[in-house]
Amino acid sequence: MLEHFFSPKTVAVVGASREEGKVGHDLLKNLIRYGYKEKVYPVNPHADDILGIKTYTSLMEIHNTIDLAVIVVPAPHVGRVVDECNNKGIDSVIVISAGFKESGIDGASRERELLRKIKKYSIRMLGPNCLGLIDTQSALNASFAADMPLPGNIAFFSQSGALCTSVLDWAVAECIGFSKFISMGNKADIDEVDLIRVIDEDKDTKVVLGYLEGVKDGTAFMRAAQKTTKNKPMIVVKSGGTMAGAKAASSHTGTLAGAENAFNAAFQQSGILRAKTVEELFDYARIFSHQPFPKGPRIALITNAGGPGIIAADAVERSKLEMATFSRNTIDVLRASLPSMANIYNPVDVLGDAKADRYKFVIEKVIEDPNVDIVLIILTPQAMTEIEKTAEVVGEISNRTDKTIATSFMGGKRIETGLKVMCQRKVPNYLFPERAVSAVEAMYKYTLWQKKPAPEIKKIPVQRETVASVFETTRRTGSQYLGEVEAKQVISAYGFRIPKSILAASEQEAVQAAEEIGYPVVVKISSPDILHKSDFGGVIVGVKDAAEVRRLFSDITQKARRLMPFAEIKGVLVQQMITGGKEVILGMSRDPQFGPLLMFGLGGIYIEVLKDVTFRIAPIGLNEAEEMIREIRSFPLLLGVRGERPADTDALVDNIIRLSQLVTDFPEIMEMDINPLIVFPEGGGAMALDARITIT
Amino acid sequence: MLEHFFSPKTVAVVGASREEGKVGHDLLKNLIRYGYKEKVYPVNPHADDILGIKTYTSLMEIHNTIDLAVIVVPAPHVGRVVDECNNKGIDSVIVISAGFKESGIDGASRERELLRKIKKYSIRMLGPNCLGLIDTQSALNASFAADMPLPGNIAFFSQSGALCTSVLDWAVAECIGFSKFISMGNKADIDEVDLIRVIDEDKDTKVVLGYLEGVKDGTAFMRAAQKTTKNKPMIVVKSGGTMAGAKAASSHTGTLAGAENAFNAAFQQSGILRAKTVEELFDYARIFSHQPFPKGPRIALITNAGGPGIIAADAVERSKLEMATFSRNTIDVLRASLPSMANIYNPVDVLGDAKADRYKFVIEKVIEDPNVDIVLIILTPQAMTEIEKTAEVVGEISNRTDKTIATSFMGGKRIETGLKVMCQRKVPNYLFPERAVSAVEAMYKYTLWQKKPAPEIKKIPVQRETVASVFETTRRTGSQYLGEVEAKQVISAYGFRIPKSILAASEQEAVQAAEEIGYPVVVKISSPDILHKSDFGGVIVGVKDAAEVRRLFSDITQKARRLMPFAEIKGVLVQQMITGGKEVILGMSRDPQFGPLLMFGLGGIYIEVLKDVTFRIAPIGLNEAEEMIREIRSFPLLLGVRGERPADTDALVDNIIRLSQLVTDFPEIMEMDINPLIVFPEGGGAMALDARITIT
Repeated sequence: MLEHFFSPKTVAVVGASREEGKVGHDLLKNLIRYGYKEKVYPVNPHADDILGIKTYTSLMEIHNTIDLAVIVVPAPHVGRVVDECNNKGIDSVIVISAGFKESGIDGASRERELLRKIKKYSIRMLGPNCLGLIDTQSALNASFAADMPLPGNIAFFSQSGALCTSVLDWAVAECIGFSKFISMGNKADIDEVDLIRVIDEDKDTKVVLGYLEGVKDGTAFMRAAQKTTKNKPMIVVKSGGTMAGAKAASSHTGTLAGAENAFNAAFQQSGILRAKTVEELFDYARIFSHQPFPKGPRIALITNAGGPGIIAADAVERSKLEMATFSRNTIDVLRASLPSMANIYNPVDVLGDAKADRYKFVIEKVIEDPNVDIVLIILTPQAMTEIEKTAEVVGEISNRTDKTIATSFMGGKRIETGLKVMCQRKVPNYLFPERAVSAVEAMYKYTLWQKKPAPEIKKIPVQRETVASVFETTRRTGSQYLGEVEAKQVISAYGFRIPKSILAASEQEAVQAAEEIGYPVVVKISSPDILHKSDFGGVIVGVKDAAEVRRLFSDITQKARRLMPFAEIKGVLVQQMITGGKEVILGMSRDPQFGPLLMFGLGGIYIEVLKDVTFRIAPIGLNEAEEMIREIRSFPLLLGVRGERPADTDALVDNIIRLSQLVTDFPEIMEMDINPLIVFPEGGGAMALDARITIT
Repeated sequence: MLEHFFSPKTVAVVGASREEGKVGHDLLKNLIRYGYKEKVYPVNPHADDILGIKTYTSLMEIHNTIDLAVIVVPAPHVGRVVDECNNKGIDSVIVISAGFKESGIDGASRERELLRKIKKYSIRMLGPNCLGLIDTQSALNASFAADMPLPGNIAFFSQSGALCTSVLDWAVAECIGFSKFISMGNKADIDEVDLIRVIDEDKDTKVVLGYLEGVKDGTAFMRAAQKTTKNKPMIVVKSGGTMAGAKAASSHTGTLAGAENAFNAAFQQSGILRAKTVEELFDYARIFSHQPFPKGPRIALITNAGGPGIIAADAVERSKLEMATFSRNTIDVLRASLPSMANIYNPVDVLGDAKADRYKFVIEKVIEDPNVDIVLIILTPQAMTEIEKTAEVVGEISNRTDKTIATSFMGGKRIETGLKVMCQRKVPNYLFPERAVSAVEAMYKYTLWQKKPAPEIKKIPVQRETVASVFETTRRTGSQYLGEVEAKQVISAYGFRIPKSILAASEQEAVQAAEEIGYPVVVKISSPDILHKSDFGGVIVGVKDAAEVRRLFSDITQKARRLMPFAEIKGVLVQQMITGGKEVILGMSRDPQFGPLLMFGLGGIYIEVLKDVTFRIAPIGLNEAEEMIREIRSFPLLLGVRGERPADTDALVDNIIRLSQLVTDFPEIMEMDINPLIVFPEGGGAMALDARITIT
């Protein structure tokens, strides 16, 4: 896939320049100076020779076939060059040039035109408005970056070209090597999904890093990421896009959803580790790139200073890792061999006068301990400390163990030589132990993801036709909103239990309905135009007899007509009165990038005040529905407090799955709330007391 | 204060050594090689001359008076040397030697002995088991650290000597200068409180940094810090001590309190900024040390790259800072002068080809804008970027403005020269914009603290004698626990409203009581030995008539006798039945370091499941009580949801203040819960339905 981008046999640079400092010059220089073995053809109508290479006046003049064209001409000329690429039979282009979507309305229309063209020609394009790409395996640097990274096993794709320049500069300083390094620019054609697929198949890449501000196709993104993350870790910084804007939401779910929640759910469901900052991205990258994954969460700390040991232990305490408990044998050996003042339990304090040999002895013993999965070695530069030699020792041990090793040599100038040694020996060092713990934790979390079974999405038998016809009817009335009656028909067709309820258009019908259902009953206004029924007193519970039903019928309908004169009033809904159980909300809001975003939370104040909700992108499997239930803060309330019986979480899981299937089957559902869904004690099932749905 | 430690005229080193690498040698060398102008006297019975200085066999042999003795002899000899110090009239000693409390039981008893001695002699002591101290003003390096820091305006005290060595090493690399640098060791005598007082008065110190694992006297610590932080910022890393251990807590408050909450409350009430990590400590230190405090929260971002601009704006969004909205004039000037593709709104994107002059122009214009308090300048090293020159520009502007400036030059090797320039010009640079935003935010938070009025702790008139006599009576019974009746007497004496209630020892009395109070009533078991009354059905609400009272009296008392045969049963409490209002909990648990730790939260599941509570160290003022109420997550519930009337928060504040006064007046109160306290709608006050108190 996209081979011509990463290992072309021939590259043309259209817009190559003689003038130093110009992009068309720097790019050509990068192509030739880093050992790229294949043929490079500069194209420039006004030059015969640039940087000692024969230069062509146009693509057509080149006799060879061209695998990849890199275009650096001003934006207005790019279209013409792409025509020429087509004539020349070129199928891969990188458009470096700026002046497209990023530059305003004219640029955006120029970009649309360009995209139309390359689609027509079946040309694939990276950019426009990008830095280019680098492939260290083929020694290809088709970018105007100021550096060439070291070869390595990390692939990096970025939506910000400028960030690429900073990252390259750090990487060189921090011994980080890359397999592929790609600036995506405006992502008019090739986007993160294409690149993830390429990287997935790239045997030189062990770790995938990304910087994203958004994704073009959320579903494809998740699918590609889910596949890749089973093989290689993927760490992404996602910034921006928090300005959800003035989205008019008519449901609780719509109000609480938003791009950030959708991204977090998508990342979680795809096994992507979200780094909070670019710094964290590289903290993670260094250990993922160089160290084996931990077999478990048990970490041993070895330090020559008490304070930093405590700091690290605190960080472990706050993480998903665990402090290892040494085996009897390890403790005996350490006690017998270390000075009496040393702490032989975890964290092991080898004392301030520890030289390299004492570190070596302890690390070797601890790493042999079957109760240890990870070793973090902390060093402060004290008078007797052998910094470089200790680094050698750590590097040598790391080289021959399959356990995870990280270090925190803490300091500045005095530890520099030590850091250099560890850089070479592929031991990731963190200047602060907290950051080491956080990086190791990320690795451990990734191993959990790898072990996690893929979600099993089962199709439950439902009455799909019923739903389709309800939607059809609603659409025919010209409305987007389903009233309670219709919304309940829909969810009932998908297997939700709903209370007995009868629509009554007159006092008499209301009384009959109540008698059929049995007192007490609930009486509600019925109107497709009134979404927040209880706000104006349109829901009365515990209605005890015929006289009250009669009185309420006229009360409620008159009040509704007075307050909302334009609402269509169908009458009142007489409903079985349900008592007991816990109120929860299930809902969905369609995210523009990822599609149906499911929400779950406890009802009432838990949602409205505490915003204690959780999200997943549908469709989801049983496992994920169970996770949703367990991850809200108020989950213990479902288990029952103060001697209550636990709620029927199996029924709740079942209902979440049914909702997932409903919103997946019907893409026209834009937003919906099932609120409240009453979950009864274990074995009692669940029942939806109200629902609302908005369709397109 | 402690002048002889920081600017002694004469220093003796007892245990000075000829042998390189020995602490007694390194320390002496540090004393003489960094420009310390005063007289140094090595003491060693086996040498005439060390490092070219006349050496004495004992302190007594020195003819001059000695201001400061630094002791480096082995632990068993330290006591003898201190005797000699006393004979010589020395009042200040630093004990470097290890082998005290940190080394086990024998060491601990040796330390107690040493402390007894110096108290007797009225000698002040730093250590034992410390690295020593450094005062750059007097060029005194009385430590065995491997470096001498640059002079600067930061004072640093640390409970970890090893951390000191790492910090010194960084500091040298990062152009951070210190006024004082103190390793406290075991803090047997001089502790953080003494040092904060010294530093407070030190005119060379502008910023106070600390690393603590605990404090010796919480109250004194808070008092000293409160005074200091009004003049200088104080940033502290607190680690360890989370192992609260198996403290047997009989109250909700006791269960939820703990050292971390006490420390957080103490830091907050003292204006101390708590850095989460040592890295953060130094991130903050650099900007606090060099830049003026912001006048407000409005930050402008100037960047040559879109991505990092978005990253920074995201970080601002999550912080207490605000994105500045430029004045019309600034926007006009920027529009007229910048290339058309530049973004002239905040963040200003000066574009990838911006050279130093464009940065200069924009920074100057933005800094003149009255709507801007803080400017963060972001730079990525692109092809045209003038890194060093831009650094010069920023440094020059920073030098002449009183607004806060920070930079985020992002990269590695290529930005090194730029960083060096900014180091010299006192512009703090952060490799990642998120860290810059976090450091600026800390500064802004500190300005809010400075402006905050001191808490006004008013004494409310109460019946103190009543409480004293209730406690006396309880103590006489040999109990530590006050039952509901006694606990309510106590809080009632401090002005809490309690429901009418009458203790009834017989069925007949119970019925009389109920009739006096008026039905319905609440009937509760009354026993000082039963703390969790409702757990066994010992509380019945809504009791409607005499027959029911009669039946319940025997039911409850018999059940209690059966289930808790050893409990003293006083009968039942017949109580006025209260309906409506919101349940909250007020409580207190006495922290071993800081004393009375107040707790507030909403009752029931909010505390038990969501642990939504907040803490303060008593005594507190009105402001702080108000803050407590506002800072729980479920605060909106007190304001009223779904059309409810807001709760009477004034009454709640009043009750919190009363509790604060009660637990301050009576140090014998170890733990207490007022649970539930019912807060009625505005104007309705509050009422304590139950209380329990544990005293010593």
